[in-house]
Amino acid sequence: MGVILLLSGPNLNLLGEREPQIYGSSTLDDCVADARAAAEVGGHSLEHVQGNGEAVLVDAIHGARGRCAAIVINPAAFSHYSYAIADALATFAGVKVELHVSNPYAREGWRRHSVSAPYVTGVIAGFGRAGYRLAVEAAVTLL
Amino acid sequence: MGVILLLSGPNLNLLGEREPQIYGSSTLDDCVADARAAAEVGGHSLEHVQGNGEAVLVDAIHGARGRCAAIVINPAAFSHYSYAIADALATFAGVKVELHVSNPYAREGWRRHSVSAPYVTGVIAGFGRAGYRLAVEAAVTLL
Amino acid sequence: MGVILLLSGPNLNLLGEREPQIYGSSTLDDCVADARAAAEVGGHSLEHVQGNGEAVLVDAIHGARGRCAAIVINPAAFSHYSYAIADALATFAGVKVELHVSNPYAREGWRRHSVSAPYVTGVIAGFGRAGYRLAVEAAVTLL
Amino acid sequence: MGVILLLSGPNLNLLGEREPQIYGSSTLDDCVADARAAAEVGGHSLEHVQGNGEAVLVDAIHGARGRCAAIVINPAAFSHYSYAIADALATFAGVKVELHVSNPYAREGWRRHSVSAPYVTGVIAGFGRAGYRLAVEAAVTLL
Amino acid sequence: MGVILLLSGPNLNLLGEREPQIYGSSTLDDCVADARAAAEVGGHSLEHVQGNGEAVLVDAIHGARGRCAAIVINPAAFSHYSYAIADALATFAGVKVELHVSNPYAREGWRRHSVSAPYVTGVIAGFGRAGYRLAVEAAVTLL
Amino acid sequence: MGVILLLSGPNLNLLGEREPQIYGSSTLDDCVADARAAAEVGGHSLEHVQGNGEAVLVDAIHGARGRCAAIVINPAAFSHYSYAIADALATFAGVKVELHVSNPYAREGWRRHSVSAPYVTGVIAGFGRAGYRLAVEAAVTLL
Amino acid sequence: MGVILLLSGPNLNLLGEREPQIYGSSTLDDCVADARAAAEVGGHSLEHVQGNGEAVLVDAIHGARGRCAAIVINPAAFSHYSYAIADALATFAGVKVELHVSNPYAREGWRRHSVSAPYVTGVIAGFGRAGYRLAVEAAVTLL
Amino acid sequence: MGVILLLSGPNLNLLGEREPQIYGSSTLDDCVADARAAAEVGGHSLEHVQGNGEAVLVDAIHGARGRCAAIVINPAAFSHYSYAIADALATFAGVKVELHVSNPYAREGWRRHSVSAPYVTGVIAGFGRAGYRLAVEAAVTLL
Amino acid sequence: MGVILLLSGPNLNLLGEREPQIYGSSTLDDCVADARAAAEVGGHSLEHVQGNGEAVLVDAIHGARGRCAAIVINPAAFSHYSYAIADALATFAGVKVELHVSNPYAREGWRRHSVSAPYVTGVIAGFGRAGYRLAVEAAVTLL
Amino acid sequence: MGVILLLSGPNLNLLGEREPQIYGSSTLDDCVADARAAAEVGGHSLEHVQGNGEAVLVDAIHGARGRCAAIVINPAAFSHYSYAIADALATFAGVKVELHVSNPYAREGWRRHSVSAPYVTGVIAGFGRAGYRLAVEAAVTLL
Amino acid sequence: MGVILLLSGPNLNLLGEREPQIYGSSTLDDCVADARAAAEVGGHSLEHVQGNGEAVLVDAIHGARGRCAAIVINPAAFSHYSYAIADALATFAGVKVELHVSNPYAREGWRRHSVSAPYVTGVIAGFGRAGYRLAVEAAVTLL
Amino acid sequence: MGVILLLSGPNLNLLGEREPQIYGSSTLDDCVADARAAAEVGGHSLEHVQGNGEAVLVDAIHGARGRCAAIVINPAAFSHYSYAIADALATFAGVKVELHVSNPYAREGWRRHSVSAPYVTGVIAGFGRAGYRLAVEAAVTLL
Repeated sequence: MGVILLLSGPNLNLLGEREPQIYGSSTLDDCVADARAAAEVGGHSLEHVQGNGEAVLVDAIHGARGRCAAIVINPAAFSHYSYAIADALATFAGVKVELHVSNPYAREGWRRHSVSAPYVTGVIAGFGRAGYRLAVEAAVTLL
Repeated sequence: MGVILLLSGPNLNLLGEREPQIYGSSTLDDCVADARAAAEVGGHSLEHVQGNGEAVLVDAIHGARGRCAAIVINPAAFSHYSYAIADALATFAGVKVELHVSNPYAREGWRRHSVSAPYVTGVIAGFGRAGYRLAVEAAVTLL
Repeated sequence: MGVILLLSGPNLNLLGEREPQIYGSSTLDDCVADARAAAEVGGHSLEHVQGNGEAVLVDAIHGARGRCAAIVINPAAFSHYSYAIADALATFAGVKVELHVSNPYAREGWRRHSVSAPYVTGVIAGFGRAGYRLAVEAAVTLL
Repeated sequence: MGVILLLSGPNLNLLGEREPQIYGSSTLDDCVADARAAAEVGGHSLEHVQGNGEAVLVDAIHGARGRCAAIVINPAAFSHYSYAIADALATFAGVKVELHVSNPYAREGWRRHSVSAPYVTGVIAGFGRAGYRLAVEAAVTLL
Repeated sequence: MGVILLLSGPNLNLLGEREPQIYGSSTLDDCVADARAAAEVGGHSLEHVQGNGEAVLVDAIHGARGRCAAIVINPAAFSHYSYAIADALATFAGVKVELHVSNPYAREGWRRHSVSAPYVTGVIAGFGRAGYRLAVEAAVTLL
Repeated sequence: MGVILLLSGPNLNLLGEREPQIYGSSTLDDCVADARAAAEVGGHSLEHVQGNGEAVLVDAIHGARGRCAAIVINPAAFSHYSYAIADALATFAGVKVELHVSNPYAREGWRRHSVSAPYVTGVIAGFGRAGYRLAVEAAVTLL
Repeated sequence: MGVILLLSGPNLNLLGEREPQIYGSSTLDDCVADARAAAEVGGHSLEHVQGNGEAVLVDAIHGARGRCAAIVINPAAFSHYSYAIADALATFAGVKVELHVSNPYAREGWRRHSVSAPYVTGVIAGFGRAGYRLAVEAAVTLL
Repeated sequence: MGVILLLSGPNLNLLGEREPQIYGSSTLDDCVADARAAAEVGGHSLEHVQGNGEAVLVDAIHGARGRCAAIVINPAAFSHYSYAIADALATFAGVKVELHVSNPYAREGWRRHSVSAPYVTGVIAGFGRAGYRLAVEAAVTLL
Repeated sequence: MGVILLLSGPNLNLLGEREPQIYGSSTLDDCVADARAAAEVGGHSLEHVQGNGEAVLVDAIHGARGRCAAIVINPAAFSHYSYAIADALATFAGVKVELHVSNPYAREGWRRHSVSAPYVTGVIAGFGRAGYRLAVEAAVTLL
Repeated sequence: MGVILLLSGPNLNLLGEREPQIYGSSTLDDCVADARAAAEVGGHSLEHVQGNGEAVLVDAIHGARGRCAAIVINPAAFSHYSYAIADALATFAGVKVELHVSNPYAREGWRRHSVSAPYVTGVIAGFGRAGYRLAVEAAVTLL
Repeated sequence: MGVILLLSGPNLNLLGEREPQIYGSSTLDDCVADARAAAEVGGHSLEHVQGNGEAVLVDAIHGARGRCAAIVINPAAFSHYSYAIADALATFAGVKVELHVSNPYAREGWRRHSVSAPYVTGVIAGFGRAGYRLAVEAAVTLL
Repeated sequence: MGVILLLSGPNLNLLGEREPQIYGSSTLDDCVADARAAAEVGGHSLEHVQGNGEAVLVDAIHGARGRCAAIVINPAAFSHYSYAIADALATFAGVKVELHVSNPYAREGWRRHSVSAPYVTGVIAGFGRAGYRLAVEAAVTLL
């Protein structure tokens, strides 16, 4: 089957430690493990890249072109201004899922607007660690 | 276990017939069946209410208070202005999932803003019929 | 020939009594009679539904799908916020005319914006009772 | 003397149960009883209608034309978007009081704007259950 | 009886050739002929002036004062910024109809706002060539 | 019992003379007398301060801290920009009522926004002279 | 001494006839006569150009460069959008007075913003016919 | 004849010293002398009040009611936010001229909007010291 | 080969004299000569039309339909509001270049928005006289 | 050496008592003492003026012209609307420090915008009582 | 002669493959070759740097200070938010050309605003691959 | 004692060379030396990291968690859009000072808004090189 690329944006390396009342106490490793398990159940493998800068994520998206079947991306803060990532996602022809751990609509006003959301297939937000499994299942289902 | 209430807003009764290039060719019955299956896999039962007016949905949310474990709601057009439904959701203490069949961020500008999203646990949008199963799974996972 | 569905939104049942300096002294019955006459001149029949809630209008639009040739709708206040009706109109493939008795551009600011106007064939506004005949003629001409 | 019509908008049937830290622990029955008492002290009778949809409230306002001396309306969430109710209130020539249990200026931004307030005589907001008695007294005084 | 002045704004001389998928394949001559026929049926004569600059239209409106019974104007692009034409229309005391061939609410955002619409009796938009006859009929009816 | 401080903002000294079609023909003395009567009925005394500058009102609010049970303030024009008064009100722990003689929502756009309203208990607006009695009753009831 | 160029924008040829409750009953000839008298008292001559199109006014401003000492311009509706005239005024090095017969700040919202005002020496608005004499006196004083 | 009240807002006591490249080198005394001379030529006397707070200006406007024929006010910075002064001006029935020394349309964005301008007869701005004589002449002419 | 139509908007006839610190000291003749030379190098001829009114430019664009291969237009101030010219450009099927002498993004805010730019092939701005040659080369290259 | 003028805006007289969870428990006297100590360490003396109205602060700034070396001002609520104080600060040629006790960027939206900040040398905000010493040190360093 | 630095922002490495219906089928190598040829014709050499992160571009701009004669930059998505690159460009004293392959004014709304455009000499947009040669020629001409 | 981390955003490596009329002639080394001296006076050591990309700064903030006592950050251009850095700062529990060399409120509009300021303890802006010492002193005082 195919490869699902999971991308994690800035500060997600601190998941579990960072404001756990908002983001929960699961670590990024926990989340990636859930995602991988869901991918494998669906007959896919999963690669994960985390980056605190845009270039790492843009490069990873480029690298997925023609090689990966789907991208699941939690752009974190980059959702709100990184048109570079939005443009990169637009170059990827496969399934694309935007994922958020917390519910951005229930927080500061600037979190309500995602510049990348128009360029993905769908969005899953607010389900904490469970979102990782759901997002991969969504990708698997659409593949 | 508990009851999951699935709510469908205006025009969703036409799912499958209505602009299938946007909303797909699955009917609402197909979607409800998927949702019910997912609920039952999780050990829950599912009730479904569809309404083309706010009152039906507000009443259904009220009726779920203290009786249902979770609400999965596709408010359709009501997402964009029904503060009555937003307020009703705020009165429900359980898990709440807002669901959209199409990706509202990739369409007309007015679809980008949901007045109910701040009052739910999380949002799933853009996955077509598959969203029904995912949304129920999300609810089941969080219960 | 075909059926033309005439829809009247909230408060239009008071036409003739309600702020006659703005809306004129003709009753809704007068207007519907004019509309029916114009439809029959064009070889069509006319059905009329008035509703003070969205659901009545949404249901009527659904009921017109595949059965009526055209819809003439005076959404009244619903023009300015009812995306549910806008979405319903988008599901109807025939001729659609949005009608206003007064000129919404010459009144309060909020009346200048119609959320349904992008989803109809055309708009007729400001001609009082005469608008009913004109709107039906417009529909007849385009059929 | 005359009849005062008391109208309660969506979700007010849950008063006392719904977010009591915001809306207080008095029920709608308590509030209506206070309002009725104040009306009777002023030599008026009181009718009460609650609705979770616009049509119920629009119809009730229509029914008050030429029959009731005053309307006291807590439009709840409808304050913020229901131009249908605003237009209905504009058709009523008597005293009109808009009432809110909580202080809408001290909550979410969207609660600060009332589309119906320009069409009433006056507004009373933020006094909890006591607002019901005050609003009726205001109406009685102006009659 | 009276004279109806038909005014055509910039680029309307290209009607029929210009973007026919938007504006249709009828020429301005076709449209004027329809308008004239409708005027004569109503017992009026029709004069037509087309201009690609504001001055021609402002002068024509001035010339209609006290001489013409009605003005039917398709201001085309001038609708969206020509306060000079809006002010000129405000100086004309007779019936005034603003006409658009396409539906401006269904196109680019800037076409949604007409600066002249507040200064006319009514607006007819979106009916293609048929709008010319309808607009003249509207004027005739109101005279 | 306690002291209720009644504060009147700029131009209220002209009440009764100033634009009586908007503000009525009762003088400020009339209004204060009504307020005092209502306070005394409730077992409280009433002090009144009027000021055409912010400092007088800010000082009076400071002087009420720990000494008065409630403040009833008609900030008049200051409602719309005086963050100094808003901040002063925030320092007062008792009951606070914002009062307006006319209905600010039915007048110029700038009157719709009150910068002090988020910092009071509640708002009473639009009832003319009667508002003074109602506002004091509101305060008395909440004490 | 020098020449003062007086420019009158669109619809000002109708001064005295056009909405006299707003613009007064003096004709443009009356106003120009007043302006000429004031110029001659100051030892200057006055030229007057009226235009219902931008080109006439732009050309006249160009013609004044290096030949006239001052420009007094009533741009009328062009104030609110003609950047062409604003740019033309920016090319003129002498004294420039923008004049309005009515008070644009007390009318429709769109009249509050002048695109040419940043490019003139000063503005005189709201004094009716008297403004013509005042504007010329202002220019004479500054010369 | 009558009395003309000249009012000077905050920081105008520094005229001549304060940013002379913007406000010129004439002192407020120079300007008041010019204004008084113009008033006396017109057969009126002139009183002058300067204040760095709103209360002084509001009180002076109140004191002019029924006693002065006209008010010439340079509200300085208060133009841009003092609704208290705007409301005070609305209580004065005579001629009212708003005056600015510099051209507010050619400076910082916030200087473009005057909250008091809608409540005066007319505005004179940008003519430096000469504006004082012009503003009084405007008042004299309209009396 | 073909004809390239060069269009110059309002005030460009003053190029070289007008604010040379912004627009440079080359005259429009200089610029047209450069443009013509570039056209001829590319095997095309060049026609030039300058206008201070919209009609001249709209007419010229119409005249180019089916006759010219490309339009190079410096709309000057018209860029910022002339939807008439934007609509005219939309009727021309060939290559279209919008040209500005100065950099509009580095000047007043209103110069940042061009209403015609969405309807051309490309934009060249900020290169002074050199822009004329570049714009024609751009057209030649794309032909 | 020189004099440093410390200015405290409205409600700062309540420092230490007023919302100590936001503003801390130090009194204004504590803060002034810290500021004075810092001034004296730098070889300067310190004067302090507190005012709940604009006039006191404007007058104090005027009094500092040519006499004081620096102004440290905590405009409190006046930061957000007092263009009178902003204009007064613009008349002072020395070092100017704007000081806030709390972090205005972390509170209500209206606190984010300071109208005086463009007219000072620098801003220090969010350091509580310590800000007084830092602001004076900043002034001393820049002198 | 000098060095021209050509900078390519994020996703431009995919030119030719990425959405060719928008960006064309030429590769970045093709474009750079064109640019180099144009530079060499002008007697300059060309260096090229592409980066998917801001740091690479900022560093390259810094490295050009005092060493390169001109910068030609296609900031791609960074145009729309990278104030870091805008600030970097402001530090470079030579000729600066901002280049876009597609016409950003004819696409999504967010592409219309460039934060770097105010800090360059000029902008060339919409000419596809040909823009590279034109931009270098523009730089060469201005050197 | 503890470690204070000093962070410098994009283009600050050019301090002293870059637009010295705005940023002064001190180099970043000068500033860091001042900061280090102030830290050591307070008994702390200082580490410094400069980065032209977000990742360097985000990583440095992460590295400070649980190891450094305070962060002093001059985010430079990143202040205005880097929600990634804002989120990173939110993960740091110690004292946080945002520092700007120039006064961002006195420059281009886009510099007035800092997305990181809500997430720090306080802000110091406009004091040039002196700000470095002050910011460290602020941190030391709060520790």
